[in-house]
Amino acid sequence: MDLFTAIKERRSCRSYLPDAVDDETIDRILEAAVWAPSPANNQPWEFVVITGAEAKEKIFSEAEFRKKELFEKSGWKWMDKYRVDFLKQTPLIIAVIGDPQKTGADMFAEEGRGLAYQHACAAAIQNMLLAAHALGLAGLWFTLFDKTAMRQILGVDSEKDPIALICLGKPGAEPLQTPRKDPKGRTTYMR
Amino acid sequence: MDLFTAIKERRSCRSYLPDAVDDETIDRILEAAVWAPSPANNQPWEFVVITGAEAKEKIFSEAEFRKKELFEKSGWKWMDKYRVDFLKQTPLIIAVIGDPQKTGADMFAEEGRGLAYQHACAAAIQNMLLAAHALGLAGLWFTLFDKTAMRQILGVDSEKDPIALICLGKPGAEPLQTPRKDPKGRTTYMR
Repeated sequence: MDLFTAIKERRSCRSYLPDAVDDETIDRILEAAVWAPSPANNQPWEFVVITGAEAKEKIFSEAEFRKKELFEKSGWKWMDKYRVDFLKQTPLIIAVIGDPQKTGADMFAEEGRGLAYQHACAAAIQNMLLAAHALGLAGLWFTLFDKTAMRQILGVDSEKDPIALICLGKPGAEPLQTPRKDPKGRTTYMR
Repeated sequence: MDLFTAIKERRSCRSYLPDAVDDETIDRILEAAVWAPSPANNQPWEFVVITGAEAKEKIFSEAEFRKKELFEKSGWKWMDKYRVDFLKQTPLIIAVIGDPQKTGADMFAEEGRGLAYQHACAAAIQNMLLAAHALGLAGLWFTLFDKTAMRQILGVDSEKDPIALICLGKPGAEPLQTPRKDPKGRTTYMR
């Protein structure tokens, strides 16, 4: 698929068909992830490939709990109606885990200290979502979880950082075609 | 260009030809940026397009200063030899600025609070680097600057967050072909 087509067509999907994602497709998505740039090429990412129902059920329960907590904290009415059942429905979730030890020069920054490993992981996630789209899958970048709880569910040690859960599968419904604001309205020029 | 080709071929470049990047190409790169996903589609990015010599000179001076500071703090010997002249040489730098007000549900997270806007900006940057590669340019994700200093240079107000400077131009030398570790060695499976 053409790069610009993938960039423009990719959308966040919250409804999946149960069809399993084959191993070759999973490998291609992980392969796309690791070609992202990272500070001093330190590749600060790890992955947990989740296809089992038990782990998905735990992830769903954690998200349900955080959703209720968030509704109470924020008062956002739409939160109460927001369903996270797709976490059980999706055939595949890939958790992206960051290693805060691999942040490079950024560890000495005065402000926003040591976040470069997270930026690298985010670039890897974008590669994954683009690759998934090109391979006929839809995806979702999901972050409604507590990191300590997610470490327990995924068996990740306390020094590592669960960045996001990426839901992947064939779309069960057409994803919402969210628009974008024209970048020119948010750009200044120093000529 | 095919998506997977762009993902795999893109490399960080530290040498540029002086050839100006035309406005249409700049627009296509910014357009690619804004199709990245963001929490609740809040699009937390802004851009500063830098082509003028004066701004590039200031950016170079800031990076030189931070490089020396980093060398003293880290004791990393390679830092002393690391030259940042490409900041003056590159025909185009696009600064990506994040808005911490646009972080969505993530503002209520207990750990890693309110960083989702940075992740969205990082995804936008990856789109920019891929787009640039497909358009025959090379790029570099550069972060060796102090954020307060960079706000002053770019005229960004104190509530916004300079995430990175993206150098862009025709490569003056073949970028280093940095390898990647096999993702399988960094993946666990929950089946």
